[in-house]
Amino acid sequence: MPKLIDITELILRDAHQSLMATRMAMEDMIPACADLDQAGFWSVECWGGATFDSCIRFLNEDPWERLRTFRKLMPNTKLQMLLRGQNLLGYRHYEDTVVDRFVEKAAENGMDVFRVFDALNDIRNLRRSIAAVRRTGKHTQGTICYTVSPLHTTGDFVEMAEKLMDLGCDSICIKDMAALLKPQAAHDIVKGIKESCGQDVRVHVHVHATTGVTMVSLMKAIEAGADCVDTAISSLSLGPGHNPTESLVEMLEGTGYTTRVDKAKLVKLKRYFNTIRPRYQEFLSNITGVETEIFDSQIPGGMLSNMESQLKQQKAGDRMEEVLLEVPKVRADAGFPPLVTPSSQIVGTQAVFNVMMGRYKVLTGEFADLMLGYYGETIGPRNPQVIELAAKQTGKSPIRDRPADYLKPEWQELRSTALALKGCNGSDEDVLTSAMFPQVAAKFFLTREQGPKNLGKDPHAAPAPVAAAPAPAVADTGKGPVRTTIIYDIKLNGNTHQVTVSPA
Amino acid sequence: MPKLIDITELILRDAHQSLMATRMAMEDMIPACADLDQAGFWSVECWGGATFDSCIRFLNEDPWERLRTFRKLMPNTKLQMLLRGQNLLGYRHYEDTVVDRFVEKAAENGMDVFRVFDALNDIRNLRRSIAAVRRTGKHTQGTICYTVSPLHTTGDFVEMAEKLMDLGCDSICIKDMAALLKPQAAHDIVKGIKESCGQDVRVHVHVHATTGVTMVSLMKAIEAGADCVDTAISSLSLGPGHNPTESLVEMLEGTGYTTRVDKAKLVKLKRYFNTIRPRYQEFLSNITGVETEIFDSQIPGGMLSNMESQLKQQKAGDRMEEVLLEVPKVRADAGFPPLVTPSSQIVGTQAVFNVMMGRYKVLTGEFADLMLGYYGETIGPRNPQVIELAAKQTGKSPIRDRPADYLKPEWQELRSTALALKGCNGSDEDVLTSAMFPQVAAKFFLTREQGPKNLGKDPHAAPAPVAAAPAPAVADTGKGPVRTTIIYDIKLNGNTHQVTVSPA
Repeated sequence: MPKLIDITELILRDAHQSLMATRMAMEDMIPACADLDQAGFWSVECWGGATFDSCIRFLNEDPWERLRTFRKLMPNTKLQMLLRGQNLLGYRHYEDTVVDRFVEKAAENGMDVFRVFDALNDIRNLRRSIAAVRRTGKHTQGTICYTVSPLHTTGDFVEMAEKLMDLGCDSICIKDMAALLKPQAAHDIVKGIKESCGQDVRVHVHVHATTGVTMVSLMKAIEAGADCVDTAISSLSLGPGHNPTESLVEMLEGTGYTTRVDKAKLVKLKRYFNTIRPRYQEFLSNITGVETEIFDSQIPGGMLSNMESQLKQQKAGDRMEEVLLEVPKVRADAGFPPLVTPSSQIVGTQAVFNVMMGRYKVLTGEFADLMLGYYGETIGPRNPQVIELAAKQTGKSPIRDRPADYLKPEWQELRSTALALKGCNGSDEDVLTSAMFPQVAAKFFLTREQGPKNLGKDPHAAPAPVAAAPAPAVADTGKGPVRTTIIYDIKLNGNTHQVTVSPA
Repeated sequence: MPKLIDITELILRDAHQSLMATRMAMEDMIPACADLDQAGFWSVECWGGATFDSCIRFLNEDPWERLRTFRKLMPNTKLQMLLRGQNLLGYRHYEDTVVDRFVEKAAENGMDVFRVFDALNDIRNLRRSIAAVRRTGKHTQGTICYTVSPLHTTGDFVEMAEKLMDLGCDSICIKDMAALLKPQAAHDIVKGIKESCGQDVRVHVHVHATTGVTMVSLMKAIEAGADCVDTAISSLSLGPGHNPTESLVEMLEGTGYTTRVDKAKLVKLKRYFNTIRPRYQEFLSNITGVETEIFDSQIPGGMLSNMESQLKQQKAGDRMEEVLLEVPKVRADAGFPPLVTPSSQIVGTQAVFNVMMGRYKVLTGEFADLMLGYYGETIGPRNPQVIELAAKQTGKSPIRDRPADYLKPEWQELRSTALALKGCNGSDEDVLTSAMFPQVAAKFFLTREQGPKNLGKDPHAAPAPVAAAPAPAVADTGKGPVRTTIIYDIKLNGNTHQVTVSPA
């Protein structure tokens, strides 16, 4: 009997986060839910920081309502979320009782599996949220952020797995957000965890496809004993996204492993999302191939594009090369944190600052906090000279304790803030929404009543922007795909003319 | 010491054949040759039927001159070609002395490695060309076309390898043109060949990337003992193309295998071909993701698009579903040939005919020949009723002997035909060009003097055709990529105005 390999389907969260800037509207997910529910996945990942943020920032959707709808439409499948440990879905540490409250509410609204990670792999930042999930009786997945540095060894990752199991996790996830996990490393870490924590400890493997090697890493992880792998329906896979679910299923044919998914459902889902993808053309990642230079630079794709846009804002787009050389230095000074939200942004932005203004002439508040220990401990020692600069610039002292120990109870204050916002419905869920993204939530509460905004567009109505061509204003004549009209604002002899160009 | 795995780089032949309709001009290949030569590849595939055809049909290039240029520019690397056995580079069987002559001339002009295959895996169709290559002292690679059918077993492929080795081949290639080779099958076939033919028999593995599983197949083939794998520089990889060379190299890190390629050269090559790819926008495959439905239909992508265009020409684009159901029936009636040029076209076209005119109401000449044995033997028995129809329709008798045995010496006639063509230079090379593609060669000889025609276009000068947008007339100001100016002919109040739009 071949061993059954479970699959976590990513299409409702990380797939569209990685490939279409997290813009997929609930309206476009709903028609797929029945098939997703019946396809035989171990879980469907459908919630996390970026999707929550995007809901209220761009889509005028209540993320809690989205969760409840998933629950209703997928009664037979475990719903899974990604939780940033003590950061919850935000970018700062929350005080412990807020962590408790958030987890309770997520569970109450329908969440089944909590994948909990910390950007620095600091176990102290995970303790409270893991305990909170355990209290709800839901599945607690402790997460190891995989990274590559001169310091990280297989042994370190295995040791972290042991600590997570000691905290009572139900499973371990190896999370490779930058597609750096090569086959042999995948094999060795999974094998190490199984040998050290027990063969019956569930190991899940999450990889991105960016570098073109991680499908093989999934195979080697499976051979080493991995129980569940993360993939995405092929129509929203590859590039900075994930390996295709259908390929994973086919890959195992004839091996000692198999899956329990329904291939006919996968075909239906693929075809459905093939119709959805072009609706988000303007948000689609323009990377469709592989990128292996990241193995040397260790700079994830998302971080690259962030730094690029920062440089362009400073009209210094030509200094990217210098920034790329600066990143490893900044990362080394910071004690080699994994590069994942928010550490990737913090390190990247500081590298940009160093190039633009001189090395450590100006520290961002976040980078100073990172140096001073306010995000937690790093695997390597941090550069004492930069710590000193950070202390001097901020007037804060370096800390070694768990960062959240320094926070005062804040639920009441968060609650008052939220209740004072126009449109807040007074629920704990609204308070948590406001706590995660204060400014964005304030605006969202004001517009919530207008209902969801689907940013997807009929692909025939919106021509893709052409390289170096002016961005046209588009007027849909409403007469179907071939009748699009483009309106250009064109300057002739100093006067602006609006010119309408219709196809012949 | 890790075992050294060799790489055959495909970018100059199969990569652009699969991804940009074989249109890459020699002019765009030349700047890459020095790096390709020094990158450490076992061989560089650079010649074959489609590239030869494309040279004279579209690019006004002499394919023999292309070969000699490669030889000059890549003195340190083995040049490799794909040869269709008794079909050489054409679509029919050639008489034995023509086969000999072609191979001699290819070797003389610089070819080092001949990968010889037959679409039906009929060893008799390979014997003469293999013997011809052996006489030149060049590397003879006997090829097994991998396919999936109710009849094909691992044992069949291993047995074919044995026969190829008995003919004196220097190595065996498993050629998976449709990306159907799954990891376990790859492993089992390589292992079988090594066990049966000897561990020192070189096994090469050629796969396409279409289904998203074959990078794993390469890994399992390597673990089973494969000596060389085929990949393409990442900027022209994936989709219906191949797995990326850079990813293959990275994938092996830490395993018991390594490569001897120079990673810095790969980066240079990637960046170079990244600048070439957009020049061929209009020819680019629009498939960038994976497609796994082919595992069930077993219809390669190229065959699909062929059938689609045939149906559209018949204004029957809506009958594709019926054709897809018909293909497996036609293939079964034909004794389960692998679906590769030319058998894929022959089976596909007959399936279209069956749907449009009733099953076997009309047979194409090629399908009749296939049924009557004029292409060789198939693994399974062919449907006697259809054989009878074929005999009746064509007046030919079924044969069981080697098809080329029925051919009369034809070199003198081919030579006379060629020499009568205006512009023919009288060389054996020209005779062979004319023998391969008579009509196309005749036209090519007439225009050869005008020199190569590069179909690549400055991507900034030629906006990709946007859905439903008007195609603008374009004027390149020659001041580099960001200065392109677009001139629109626009009708206002009945008068045509030329409006020049420049980027801000």
